[in-house]
Amino acid sequence: MVFDNLVAQIKYKKSFLCVGLDPDMNKMPDCFPKSLEGIYDFLTEIIDATKNFCIAYKLNIAFFEVFGSKGWDLLEKILAYLPASHFIIADAKRGDISHSAEKYAQTFFETYSFDALTVSGYLGIDSLEPFFSYKDKSVIILGLTSNSGSQDFQQKLVHNSISILDPTFLFYELLISSCANHFNYKQAMFVVGATKSYAIQSIRNLVSKNFLLIPGIGAQGGNLEEVIKEGKNRYGGLIINVGRDIMYASNQNNFGEIAYQKAQDYQQKMALFMK
Amino acid sequence: MVFDNLVAQIKYKKSFLCVGLDPDMNKMPDCFPKSLEGIYDFLTEIIDATKNFCIAYKLNIAFFEVFGSKGWDLLEKILAYLPASHFIIADAKRGDISHSAEKYAQTFFETYSFDALTVSGYLGIDSLEPFFSYKDKSVIILGLTSNSGSQDFQQKLVHNSISILDPTFLFYELLISSCANHFNYKQAMFVVGATKSYAIQSIRNLVSKNFLLIPGIGAQGGNLEEVIKEGKNRYGGLIINVGRDIMYASNQNNFGEIAYQKAQDYQQKMALFMK
Repeated sequence: MVFDNLVAQIKYKKSFLCVGLDPDMNKMPDCFPKSLEGIYDFLTEIIDATKNFCIAYKLNIAFFEVFGSKGWDLLEKILAYLPASHFIIADAKRGDISHSAEKYAQTFFETYSFDALTVSGYLGIDSLEPFFSYKDKSVIILGLTSNSGSQDFQQKLVHNSISILDPTFLFYELLISSCANHFNYKQAMFVVGATKSYAIQSIRNLVSKNFLLIPGIGAQGGNLEEVIKEGKNRYGGLIINVGRDIMYASNQNNFGEIAYQKAQDYQQKMALFMK
Repeated sequence: MVFDNLVAQIKYKKSFLCVGLDPDMNKMPDCFPKSLEGIYDFLTEIIDATKNFCIAYKLNIAFFEVFGSKGWDLLEKILAYLPASHFIIADAKRGDISHSAEKYAQTFFETYSFDALTVSGYLGIDSLEPFFSYKDKSVIILGLTSNSGSQDFQQKLVHNSISILDPTFLFYELLISSCANHFNYKQAMFVVGATKSYAIQSIRNLVSKNFLLIPGIGAQGGNLEEVIKEGKNRYGGLIINVGRDIMYASNQNNFGEIAYQKAQDYQQKMALFMK
């Protein structure tokens, strides 16, 4: 069971760390050629440098897809290289209805064997069913994102009925609690941006058991301590993603050592909050 | 300009018809081998049979992506085959923030040269900016979908402020009007399911100039006449997608003739509403 393995890894490694892999030729250390082969060599070194300190890897599909079919071949090679012990997330934010949702689920859970996929829940509960039908996979639903535009729609006041006399929620609260009520907590996880630590507390009050995937630590400025204090639960409950601050911490030949040190540093800070 | 070409085509052909290409090996006519080559041959015959009657093609990316990198190669070959005169839509429903959104835009507008891409607006206006930065491309934002789950979130009552005393909207109305206010009407289009013809009228009251992409005609049961009466505007304003009812109307050797007849039939019904 993927969930149980994730929980065990967090306890064993005393870490919530997920390393985000967003390969960008223009940011890679200068020692690598600006080619797909260069990206492969760079990513495998980052994986080697960080795997002892992290419990998950998140592959940002946008950064592979942009290379067309060759990018998907690269994705497949990176997947094959990643350690089987880790929780492997496709950050693809897919979302569609019926047959299309089935195909997206098949893509990431069969064609490519990810443990988890990020999805948009906007289209409704029935649009998520095909993803959840893979019982040993996790489905990470977009809740509240770290961008300023999250106030445009996600943070609007909404009624869970046709009467404005009924109680209001913030839209992302309604979405998260509806999904958590409908799906098993071992499968349903939620994306919550680290730059919104006040929201992590309110979401924890709504969903005590589900895991939260937290991007926005590091380059985006989220506060690690606040996130852990507000977000952790009895299972661990947090997958804290750090991307640029590890991958692109150095563009010199020592990038691997620096990534190792950064990942170790994050893990040690996280360990302070683990019994 | 893609918009002007779309408007001209609608007038010239007296058609709103978009043919949806959702290739599924298990539904193809028996005369094709169940392989990617079989899909290519099938799709090109469907394109030949329908191109005189339709103004657009919508490629459902889920049905290509499921084959991994080979599916993207197929997508590229189909794109190369499609007539340059038509409006070519990537139905991919992408949506992410900042750098990731930039990569998705680059994927569909540069790596693959689509005219338009379907996107999710849930993450906010700033998440859509990278797509709109391609000034000669159209961005088709998910509004109201045709599934029953659209009531879970899209149809909730919402306030456009922090006060519950302020007027309410349905969530999809707020999303559509916000996006229409922010982006040029020649670029911003909206997905509205044909099974919700009451909604098409209300959306037309909010956005008089923007195009609506209407799926759900045919197999999903939407009413063509109602959709056109409520939805058309001075530019045409409608892209009406028909998928299964044309592609899979016959699984015999005569599938091409049947697709031709079906497409012609839709176009003739549509022409009744054009001056």
